[in-house]
Amino acid sequence: LDFVRIGEGVEWAVHCATVLAALPPAATLPGKALAELHGVSETYLLKHLQSLTGAGLLESVPGPRGGYRLGRPADQISLLDVVQAVEGSETAFRCTDIRARGPAQPPDQPRFARTCAINQAMLRAEVAWRESLRATSVADLAAQAQAGMGKRRLKLAAAWLGDNVRLTP
Amino acid sequence: LDFVRIGEGVEWAVHCATVLAALPPAATLPGKALAELHGVSETYLLKHLQSLTGAGLLESVPGPRGGYRLGRPADQISLLDVVQAVEGSETAFRCTDIRARGPAQPPDQPRFARTCAINQAMLRAEVAWRESLRATSVADLAAQAQAGMGKRRLKLAAAWLGDNVRLTP
Repeated sequence: LDFVRIGEGVEWAVHCATVLAALPPAATLPGKALAELHGVSETYLLKHLQSLTGAGLLESVPGPRGGYRLGRPADQISLLDVVQAVEGSETAFRCTDIRARGPAQPPDQPRFARTCAINQAMLRAEVAWRESLRATSVADLAAQAQAGMGKRRLKLAAAWLGDNVRLTP
Repeated sequence: LDFVRIGEGVEWAVHCATVLAALPPAATLPGKALAELHGVSETYLLKHLQSLTGAGLLESVPGPRGGYRLGRPADQISLLDVVQAVEGSETAFRCTDIRARGPAQPPDQPRFARTCAINQAMLRAEVAWRESLRATSVADLAAQAQAGMGKRRLKLAAAWLGDNVRLTP
């Protein structure tokens, strides 16, 4: 069996965007703090945060008081935006048009008039996947994550944020 | 960027199932002929046909007049069945629960009451993908593929099938 797997970078990136969605406006968190909060490798996380920055989803504020913040309002960043910033927006299924390879091809009429029905059906499913991810924003995730934390975790998280958040001028 | 990619085995397997859906009942096609028809490696194709057989989607008729045929009616084999027979039914997103790793955890209360909202949203999208694939049957694909072939290709394909199909006793 082959396996289709979404890399752990997606999980990391979505969690970071969700945390940043909970910060007050203009506040930032350094990459080092985001790595510590999630118990993941800072080096690898920075690679993914750079992808998010490159896609305009995060802003990287330089300098000793700098860090990351969202690049636009959290309700205007979809889960799909974050996933595609990390994994790319290419389709998972790639039609190689094997229907046109075999012995049953008219030699002077090699091209089909229509896209392969199999390719269409596979891509329709990917559209459904993307539409589902597009329907959830990072703001939704932040609200849901907070609702699932419980009072004690919320208090600990607030204390940790208080120690690590930077307020940019 | 990482890439999420569905292996070409899926494309091959769906095309083979679609061709077998167009055969008369009880007729079979040898793996060698299916490989030739699609211009793909027989060795690799047989591996995937074995996965389909293992999942009950194909039947392998042994012997010199044998070959492959569908394991059940074509309208009872979904595109999802074929994809999962090749790729497995594991989810593409794997939550490693990184929310529980960081420094903001109550030491005596390590477990969250609810599943992570991020995991839920990612898996909801995979449900949408699966539901879309489940809605298309191999019978649908065979009808659509034939509709897209044009008269000359249909005639060539019928001639090729006439030379290669085996009728089991």
